[in-house]
Amino acid sequence: MAEKVEGYEFSQSHGKERVRVARVWKTKDGQRHFVVEWRVSINLLSDCINSYLRDDNSDIVATDTMKNTVYAKAKECSEILSAEDFAILLAKHFTSFYRQVTTAIVKIVEKPWERVSVDGQPHEHGFKLGSEKHTTEAIVKKSGALQLTSGIEGLSVLKTTKSGFEGFIRDKYTVLPDTRERMLATEVTALWRYSYESVNSIPQKPLYFTDRYLDIKRVLVDTFFGSPKEGVYSPSVQSTLYQMAKASLNRFPDIASIQLKMPNIHFLPVNLSNKEGQIVKFNDDVFLPTDEPHGSIEASLSRSRSKL
Amino acid sequence: MAEKVEGYEFSQSHGKERVRVARVWKTKDGQRHFVVEWRVSINLLSDCINSYLRDDNSDIVATDTMKNTVYAKAKECSEILSAEDFAILLAKHFTSFYRQVTTAIVKIVEKPWERVSVDGQPHEHGFKLGSEKHTTEAIVKKSGALQLTSGIEGLSVLKTTKSGFEGFIRDKYTVLPDTRERMLATEVTALWRYSYESVNSIPQKPLYFTDRYLDIKRVLVDTFFGSPKEGVYSPSVQSTLYQMAKASLNRFPDIASIQLKMPNIHFLPVNLSNKEGQIVKFNDDVFLPTDEPHGSIEASLSRSRSKL
Amino acid sequence: MAEKVEGYEFSQSHGKERVRVARVWKTKDGQRHFVVEWRVSINLLSDCINSYLRDDNSDIVATDTMKNTVYAKAKECSEILSAEDFAILLAKHFTSFYRQVTTAIVKIVEKPWERVSVDGQPHEHGFKLGSEKHTTEAIVKKSGALQLTSGIEGLSVLKTTKSGFEGFIRDKYTVLPDTRERMLATEVTALWRYSYESVNSIPQKPLYFTDRYLDIKRVLVDTFFGSPKEGVYSPSVQSTLYQMAKASLNRFPDIASIQLKMPNIHFLPVNLSNKEGQIVKFNDDVFLPTDEPHGSIEASLSRSRSKL
Amino acid sequence: MAEKVEGYEFSQSHGKERVRVARVWKTKDGQRHFVVEWRVSINLLSDCINSYLRDDNSDIVATDTMKNTVYAKAKECSEILSAEDFAILLAKHFTSFYRQVTTAIVKIVEKPWERVSVDGQPHEHGFKLGSEKHTTEAIVKKSGALQLTSGIEGLSVLKTTKSGFEGFIRDKYTVLPDTRERMLATEVTALWRYSYESVNSIPQKPLYFTDRYLDIKRVLVDTFFGSPKEGVYSPSVQSTLYQMAKASLNRFPDIASIQLKMPNIHFLPVNLSNKEGQIVKFNDDVFLPTDEPHGSIEASLSRSRSKL
Repeated sequence: MAEKVEGYEFSQSHGKERVRVARVWKTKDGQRHFVVEWRVSINLLSDCINSYLRDDNSDIVATDTMKNTVYAKAKECSEILSAEDFAILLAKHFTSFYRQVTTAIVKIVEKPWERVSVDGQPHEHGFKLGSEKHTTEAIVKKSGALQLTSGIEGLSVLKTTKSGFEGFIRDKYTVLPDTRERMLATEVTALWRYSYESVNSIPQKPLYFTDRYLDIKRVLVDTFFGSPKEGVYSPSVQSTLYQMAKASLNRFPDIASIQLKMPNIHFLPVNLSNKEGQIVKFNDDVFLPTDEPHGSIEASLSRSRSKL
Repeated sequence: MAEKVEGYEFSQSHGKERVRVARVWKTKDGQRHFVVEWRVSINLLSDCINSYLRDDNSDIVATDTMKNTVYAKAKECSEILSAEDFAILLAKHFTSFYRQVTTAIVKIVEKPWERVSVDGQPHEHGFKLGSEKHTTEAIVKKSGALQLTSGIEGLSVLKTTKSGFEGFIRDKYTVLPDTRERMLATEVTALWRYSYESVNSIPQKPLYFTDRYLDIKRVLVDTFFGSPKEGVYSPSVQSTLYQMAKASLNRFPDIASIQLKMPNIHFLPVNLSNKEGQIVKFNDDVFLPTDEPHGSIEASLSRSRSKL
Repeated sequence: MAEKVEGYEFSQSHGKERVRVARVWKTKDGQRHFVVEWRVSINLLSDCINSYLRDDNSDIVATDTMKNTVYAKAKECSEILSAEDFAILLAKHFTSFYRQVTTAIVKIVEKPWERVSVDGQPHEHGFKLGSEKHTTEAIVKKSGALQLTSGIEGLSVLKTTKSGFEGFIRDKYTVLPDTRERMLATEVTALWRYSYESVNSIPQKPLYFTDRYLDIKRVLVDTFFGSPKEGVYSPSVQSTLYQMAKASLNRFPDIASIQLKMPNIHFLPVNLSNKEGQIVKFNDDVFLPTDEPHGSIEASLSRSRSKL
Repeated sequence: MAEKVEGYEFSQSHGKERVRVARVWKTKDGQRHFVVEWRVSINLLSDCINSYLRDDNSDIVATDTMKNTVYAKAKECSEILSAEDFAILLAKHFTSFYRQVTTAIVKIVEKPWERVSVDGQPHEHGFKLGSEKHTTEAIVKKSGALQLTSGIEGLSVLKTTKSGFEGFIRDKYTVLPDTRERMLATEVTALWRYSYESVNSIPQKPLYFTDRYLDIKRVLVDTFFGSPKEGVYSPSVQSTLYQMAKASLNRFPDIASIQLKMPNIHFLPVNLSNKEGQIVKFNDDVFLPTDEPHGSIEASLSRSRSKL
């Protein structure tokens, strides 16, 4: 999007962030309710160079207008739809409605409202906030070309055994001992790109992408932990991350690539002593959990022809 | 704790906050693991006035020592115990171990690690972070007198119907219309005081207080939502809060009082129009969720002889 | 405020939090602008028990109405005024305008917009955000009785020498060595109560309380650091805190009491070694700054007849 | 960095984030102290594929070792240096010390400790936390090739007049009126890339980059506000942003490009009315400041041959 301006290379975009919207749908009898709460970010690449160079805003889509459009389009959605579908719908609107807009980037973070159960039964209109979040980003060009990425934010998992780290490089700055027994904790951020390359080629099944989100999350979690009785040994965060990424690609053919960020959130062994002797001697029992510093391990795995 | 110093009234305390500790226990065969992660705050009322008035720290328990004690005591706990039991154990230690300490206040926030299920079975050593948090505060005096309070933080709930607000005071500053149909969302903070007044009188059953926490949370949630099919009409946050508090006291005889904070987190109806006409007309479908401002409704309900 | 309800003791309040308002004033020629940005919280003690017990909101001041009132009253303030004055003005309104309201509690946090300088000159209408914040709380009863407290939030200060901690209690849990040379860092939270006990007795000078805020902040900072060349030795956070509190009371006769919270934010000495030898040997040069855990030291100092 | 693995494209990196270090230096007489506090993030591109594919960590630099290196290198810096110089020094170390490391990315955020003044004089060893932050990122390849980017985070500025927005696209979703008088507030995030392309070509002057940071910040602020008496009219955030970027490139020849993110943080005019009439009529005096949603305007300006 760079262009030549007054002897410089110039690129720009503008949009509206943190547009919050909730949408309620009901079954025909009005009994069962469904609700989503989305935080929408819109970013437009558009031909509006004059707004930068002079007092001429005639090519600018006001960000207030973008915000209004989110509400107008949410209203038009008379049937429940996934965050992915709504992001694509919005992005298509901006690229087709405005001559100036060449590309629209719409991101959504969905708040994890989950239907509550009372007396063992799902409640018709009651919801409770869960933990990790479903995210998506749709990049749509005027041509209809699509890049669709979805993800998970804040999936915190921990296993109390079946994890180690040994045989790494030892040098004058190395203090960490080898171990085959440690706590393994991380907060997974996952991003996967779908292989659909046009707004016209996406699956028409309602909530297709919502189901995919749940399925991929389950594969990631199951691979991280291993079987309920035995678990699975993790020789490094790197190795576990790779197994999780591979399992996702193997299982879901319409995932073109997946990126995982898995910070190593350290639970330090507690050993304490003073001159009189040892106060606490670690025996895989008492840990000091820390937020900082943390290891940062990230990788992406792609089918040959596509990249994140 | 106020005392006369240099012609002024003086009161003071010192402690250590944000001491993080995780503790793992295992069944005898080593197969099933249990884990808690606690953020501990210690505050001591103690006779150490000289540390304020002059260069004399001889009556001060160093806050670093307090931190070490958390780890030493966690190590000593060879059996799983509730946050409440650990808070009391720590507070008892400080008041009995140090001549200078007259009262110890220990607060704990427990991170909501929940055993994960894989293939429909609980995992032996795998945990995932949930949402709302269990909290507790034990105040222990040298005499053994106890004030024990527990609570819930961050319990976010929402119902999409069966809520209204009408008939309130109307005056020149009033804009809000009456309604019998609105979204009701809140983030409950609950604090309840147990009736045990001595460190010697608390129940000896393991995890008694952990079970109580889960039970009270269920009563609060069930009362908020009503039955799964019909729900229950809420004429105001005030009324719903009162029902929740009353249900808790009625159900649990060892709860002396309960305090609930239930901010009214507004989901604003979306109506949009410009000169050409209406863009969005609200029909209980499209909402603008907001964090600020929010209503703040709080109340406490006590059995006659005890107060929070 | 407790009352007997259905066999229980009951107390309650309701209000509106996080009401944000900015107010601009101009000199008569329109040239010089002044701006404040306030986050207002209102809490009312009022006779509205029926809203809790039954579907009857007829005694409730809607929190939406409270919010509107903030804007209406800000509009009415045609001259610049302090956060304290605005809090009192609002609280007086609620207790006098509504029969049901017996006490109003209004808190304000002021965002630290500071007039910017360009080319060494104060800008007529340009402002930049500073760091620590001015806070206030006015509690006004129907009778006109007043409790006025003001404060500072987030005043982070650090001195790289002239601080020590030695001679404290040593026991089996003690690891910390004595020292007369350490970093001292804290984030001061200050609260001081003014001696004015009626809404009619407060000073009429414009910006009186704003000036007091700046003056007290300077006394606190100057006492913490000591003279620019020599500084002042701190034998403990406790001692420094006491000096700061005492200097404030000594200097400002209309301050009835002051409370200071001064967490000891640790900058840990870095010493690192492995089997081959020492990697880093601490020489008052390299530190590990930490947020958690931190010491918590707090105290309040009052003139004999008033307490915070 | 992508490579072919088991039929997939694979790319990866690992590192350590949120490594906090403070460093104190003193003048020879020990009188005047200098302090920096840095939050360092290290990310290494390295040949360690076996750690992902199998239980073989022999090519991994442990993230714990990276952390130790930060402290060891901070210790070695006997003279005060800029965050940029320290980032480059660290990155050079990783690429030269480890055969496996092909590229090192080191980011630093500097905490804004500012020397305090007491009685109008700079204090020898006293510091107070300011607001906006200095950031930097050095990317160093084994060859010595360098990309050096520095920036500002959290520079919040506001002007109460000389700002408008009019003549933008009007369509069926447009509600915003034209105006030539509004509040303009933003939180500037700036990133500029230096033209130095090798670790050997950077300026040797101590604190060169620290001075540049202060100079660029002043140019940005001055351009945003205009002269102290007259200010400068902003016809759009876009236009103001462009002027700020251009002024930076014009003024500093070793800046190859600059990127500015300037969210439009809205201060909404307050107009309130009910059936009885108007409660508040806006007259450029009472505003509702909001965090969300906000406009997002960003752009980058580069000299022809270099891009951010």
